[in-house]
Amino acid sequence: MQQLVEELLTGNRRAAARLITLVENNDKQKNDLLKELFPHTGRSYVIGITGAPGAGKSSLVDQLLQQIRFEKLSVGVIAVDPTSPFSGGAILGDRIRMQDHALDQEIFIRSMGTRGSLGGLSRSTREAIQVLDAFGKDLVLIETVGVGQSEVDIVKTADTTVVVLTPAGGDTVQTLKAGIMEIADVFVINKADLPGMERTVTEVNMMLDMQGDKSWRPPVIPAVSIRGEGAAELWEALKKHRQYLETSGELDRVRRLRIRRELTEQVEYLVKQKVWEQIKETIDYDKLVEEIAGRKKDPYSSACELLENINFYR
Amino acid sequence: MQQLVEELLTGNRRAAARLITLVENNDKQKNDLLKELFPHTGRSYVIGITGAPGAGKSSLVDQLLQQIRFEKLSVGVIAVDPTSPFSGGAILGDRIRMQDHALDQEIFIRSMGTRGSLGGLSRSTREAIQVLDAFGKDLVLIETVGVGQSEVDIVKTADTTVVVLTPAGGDTVQTLKAGIMEIADVFVINKADLPGMERTVTEVNMMLDMQGDKSWRPPVIPAVSIRGEGAAELWEALKKHRQYLETSGELDRVRRLRIRRELTEQVEYLVKQKVWEQIKETIDYDKLVEEIAGRKKDPYSSACELLENINFYR
Repeated sequence: MQQLVEELLTGNRRAAARLITLVENNDKQKNDLLKELFPHTGRSYVIGITGAPGAGKSSLVDQLLQQIRFEKLSVGVIAVDPTSPFSGGAILGDRIRMQDHALDQEIFIRSMGTRGSLGGLSRSTREAIQVLDAFGKDLVLIETVGVGQSEVDIVKTADTTVVVLTPAGGDTVQTLKAGIMEIADVFVINKADLPGMERTVTEVNMMLDMQGDKSWRPPVIPAVSIRGEGAAELWEALKKHRQYLETSGELDRVRRLRIRRELTEQVEYLVKQKVWEQIKETIDYDKLVEEIAGRKKDPYSSACELLENINFYR
Repeated sequence: MQQLVEELLTGNRRAAARLITLVENNDKQKNDLLKELFPHTGRSYVIGITGAPGAGKSSLVDQLLQQIRFEKLSVGVIAVDPTSPFSGGAILGDRIRMQDHALDQEIFIRSMGTRGSLGGLSRSTREAIQVLDAFGKDLVLIETVGVGQSEVDIVKTADTTVVVLTPAGGDTVQTLKAGIMEIADVFVINKADLPGMERTVTEVNMMLDMQGDKSWRPPVIPAVSIRGEGAAELWEALKKHRQYLETSGELDRVRRLRIRRELTEQVEYLVKQKVWEQIKETIDYDKLVEEIAGRKKDPYSSACELLENINFYR
């Protein structure tokens, strides 16, 4: 692994791919790996892109990659699909077009599904970002299908979040309900050539008005991603949001919060591991469950007893 | 609280309402309360009803209540809306019609939103079920809006889960993707008088065919809940599923799994509480986060150090 890390730090793509697979598989060496990588992280800027299936996220990302490459920035793309079991180098269905970019050494594309992600998809995504960060990518794009809670969790790691809507469906307000409003820094109304575009833009703006005064008001950008329309405007908006975060001190604040959460999760993970190891060794858990099912004991007193009977620091 | 519990056990509705408020507010006395109630639980049969907003769940529940009352069974209804901040006795918008039932002493209706649920909405729902179980209700209906992960979590507590779809929208397959297929024991295609009904039924059946042989195949029931059509068939399907669970031993198995999960959560909750109490007392957490943000330390080694420096059993 030490060698893989060294290769990663010198820009070896194969090392990057293998290390992402390693975190995805929740490999025993994962924590050591993350420890090694950590001093080399904190430099990438992370952009999350989410929206309903069929909203045209892939072609939007495709167009965005062009904009990014115009400025000679290097970029990693992680395409997350919580509904797909498939992970790995294999590029998913509608990502075929991205293969144009796959030949570009400064672009690294990876898809992630649920199969490999034994530690949970949003955790794996966070860890894959760490790999690409240490790999030296200026930008990391996280593209995720859907607008449910799991996608919100995935996208929470991003510095800037883009929510892609379409005029079709008329479900704008419904979509926005699901916690999306709070996470969006930029809205894209894709397929803006479809009927209903004006109405959708108005609806989103009305929802934004209702939120009252905030120091950053998410811009609402119409786009027709398959024709490349709106990509330059999106890229400008992303740069503007980054600038806002940096000058307001908000980027620092949010990244500290994220580190705090990471540390907290890590502590709780270790504690759990220790506790269950001991419980498994010393207590007949099945029998206890049986007794509770028979209402001879209750889960609340039993939990207290369990903890009293184990020795945390042996 | 002792008195409230006694009143609950003798069938006092006000006591039930107040105890649910208490668990919702994550009151200090909550664990003691749940401990008291536990020996009186395990008798209610829990039915979960979920589906997209506007699918007509409330009127379906309304109709179902009639069926249940024909058989002289007592029933509690918990209407959970993860998108609403409102909780309490107040009956939500489209629940007005249920007020007919509100006069019926054997029906207890309660709505729950996010406001009061300091311990998390799915946990509060589970605990409210415990209250209604000890209260002596034969059946508890959990109605929840939406089909996202939080609704899936809420509905996981149910013995039988009903997923309500409509022909409109044409988003059937999309809806079914989101983990719903696995939790549905019964499908209702509501608003069956709308165009597209046949196609929706076919789609759902095709998805069920793809799942291969299972010992229980969810029936697909057309309904027009505002006219009461389909309610009797739904009630029959629910009784059939319950019978299947009971005769196959599946009900016992699943309830044991749920008790195991409850115990596990309780243990982890207590451990976390103890650990953070000590960490807060002994370590300057903010300073540590600052050092990690500056890449002077990493979260993985720091978590280990934190645990080494605290004494779990003082």
